[in-house]
Amino acid sequence: MGYLIDNLQYANWSEKIFRQMREGGVDGVHVTITYHESFREMVLQLEAWNRWFEQFPDLIMRATTADDVATARATGRTAIFFGFQNPSPIEDDIGLIGIVHQLGVRFMQLTYNNQSLLASGCYEVDDTGLTRFGAQAVAEMNRVGLVVDMSHSGDRSTLEAIDASSRPIAITHANPSWWHAARRNFGDDVIKPLVARGGMVGFSVYPHHLKCGSDCTIESFCQMIADAASRYGAQHLGIGTDLCQDQPDSVVDWMRVGRWSKAMDYGEGSADASGFPAMPSWFGDNRDFGNIRTGLAAVGMSDSEVDGIMGDNWHRFYGENFSPANS
Amino acid sequence: MGYLIDNLQYANWSEKIFRQMREGGVDGVHVTITYHESFREMVLQLEAWNRWFEQFPDLIMRATTADDVATARATGRTAIFFGFQNPSPIEDDIGLIGIVHQLGVRFMQLTYNNQSLLASGCYEVDDTGLTRFGAQAVAEMNRVGLVVDMSHSGDRSTLEAIDASSRPIAITHANPSWWHAARRNFGDDVIKPLVARGGMVGFSVYPHHLKCGSDCTIESFCQMIADAASRYGAQHLGIGTDLCQDQPDSVVDWMRVGRWSKAMDYGEGSADASGFPAMPSWFGDNRDFGNIRTGLAAVGMSDSEVDGIMGDNWHRFYGENFSPANS
Repeated sequence: MGYLIDNLQYANWSEKIFRQMREGGVDGVHVTITYHESFREMVLQLEAWNRWFEQFPDLIMRATTADDVATARATGRTAIFFGFQNPSPIEDDIGLIGIVHQLGVRFMQLTYNNQSLLASGCYEVDDTGLTRFGAQAVAEMNRVGLVVDMSHSGDRSTLEAIDASSRPIAITHANPSWWHAARRNFGDDVIKPLVARGGMVGFSVYPHHLKCGSDCTIESFCQMIADAASRYGAQHLGIGTDLCQDQPDSVVDWMRVGRWSKAMDYGEGSADASGFPAMPSWFGDNRDFGNIRTGLAAVGMSDSEVDGIMGDNWHRFYGENFSPANS
Repeated sequence: MGYLIDNLQYANWSEKIFRQMREGGVDGVHVTITYHESFREMVLQLEAWNRWFEQFPDLIMRATTADDVATARATGRTAIFFGFQNPSPIEDDIGLIGIVHQLGVRFMQLTYNNQSLLASGCYEVDDTGLTRFGAQAVAEMNRVGLVVDMSHSGDRSTLEAIDASSRPIAITHANPSWWHAARRNFGDDVIKPLVARGGMVGFSVYPHHLKCGSDCTIESFCQMIADAASRYGAQHLGIGTDLCQDQPDSVVDWMRVGRWSKAMDYGEGSADASGFPAMPSWFGDNRDFGNIRTGLAAVGMSDSEVDGIMGDNWHRFYGENFSPANS
């Protein structure tokens, strides 16, 4: 069987979750380590991970290359890759892009909902595209091997990033808006140019991104993936669950307003439903990837297409995009 | 010929100096990147080096392992290793030891003249040895592969670090006090236990550490090394010039008082001679290592002893001490 890679999680990490990853046969996970953190705060997250790697050497390993996924599988562990959902850790300093890559970070969103120093988020009224710093940052990210992730960006910004980037970029966790219209989902107008340049889309199971939310069926989710494979080519698709397992609702507040607002902004939620939404019945934790695999086969996808979507496509993408451009 | 490695420089780096390293056939240099800097300030120094590596890829390369010295020689470049002369970049956080190792740092002094959070410096009246944090930090440095450097520490602290460390430690840049009595030089009571545990001493050509200062002769310097080889074994000896080429005198002020004093403290200098002292005639820059090599042969050392002192001993030490303890 191919590799099993989830290209986005932000759980409240614990031995329990690491053991569930092993039970679920998860070979690699791209984990979000920061939303609104500064560089110095981000380093504290790396330190926390270093402690986990030291405490649980039989369950998880720090990973920075595609080959690390093979090593993890061969040694019965899960390879952990790092990413940012906002460029706040690079502050206003292009030199920090190389530093965070040296520290093992492999994905960075140019925005998280709001305008950043690099581009416009998907919640801004006016998406003004890549900024001056943004264009420089994309070139530097290309040079060192830090993947541009536009999951929370506006359409114009995303299109400009696709165009500006000399290497493929990613939407690590979102779904097509033709399946479920949501501010965080994307249409053909963005996904087609993304995949035309070798980019990848990771499908999210976060209920706000799903048709019928928490009641979404596995059949509907998998049929959407099959339809996306017809439109975009299965080789450009993968999984990015956006699993936020065991997080208290205070964490979704931090994601939504960080330190930028004193007033609450509910983002995809609402005052009535302000916390994390209930997960769909068929995906609660890392032991449930089999449901997706089975569901993809049930809608008629071939074994090789399923293997690609469940991890091999991300594995190929890692191999092509995590190293310096001149290596 | 063996490798040529200088195990301590703090120059005002420039293309000129990088070219002089190549003219001098220098295969590797351990460069000081910080004296009193915080973690965040240290990162800015790493960024400056990343820029130099990008600008001068034919002259220098970022280095973190002994093998990188071979790569540098094979490609006609100088391997650059990083170190701190004070533990200030790890602040009060043991987790930063792993982080700075991931960023490529390979040597850290536990003190710079003053009391630190880890140990006592050689200028303190009362050397109280390793602190509680110091003992924990040494164990963590051993674990990750960050070498303990006691060049600016007091004798008791140095002896306690030798004893506490499960891996060999270094005095990267100092001379024997039986040759020139100076607060920064060390006696047999420290150097013998250091080498008994596999430690290394790098001989300094900074005039305040030399017999007769700037007027020190190459014969006297090399005879001191030959005498040290008789006392300690040549395999434990190397070079750590402490070359501060092209630095303005404002830099020696920063070294001496950082931000810890509003009053000037002249350290090894004096109010009459407050700046950098004049270098000895036989060592002004990286093109002059041949004078030391010739001088060592002239005092009767064997070719293999000379090769060891000029770089092979540091190369061996790097190979044994830069990787995690369990690797």
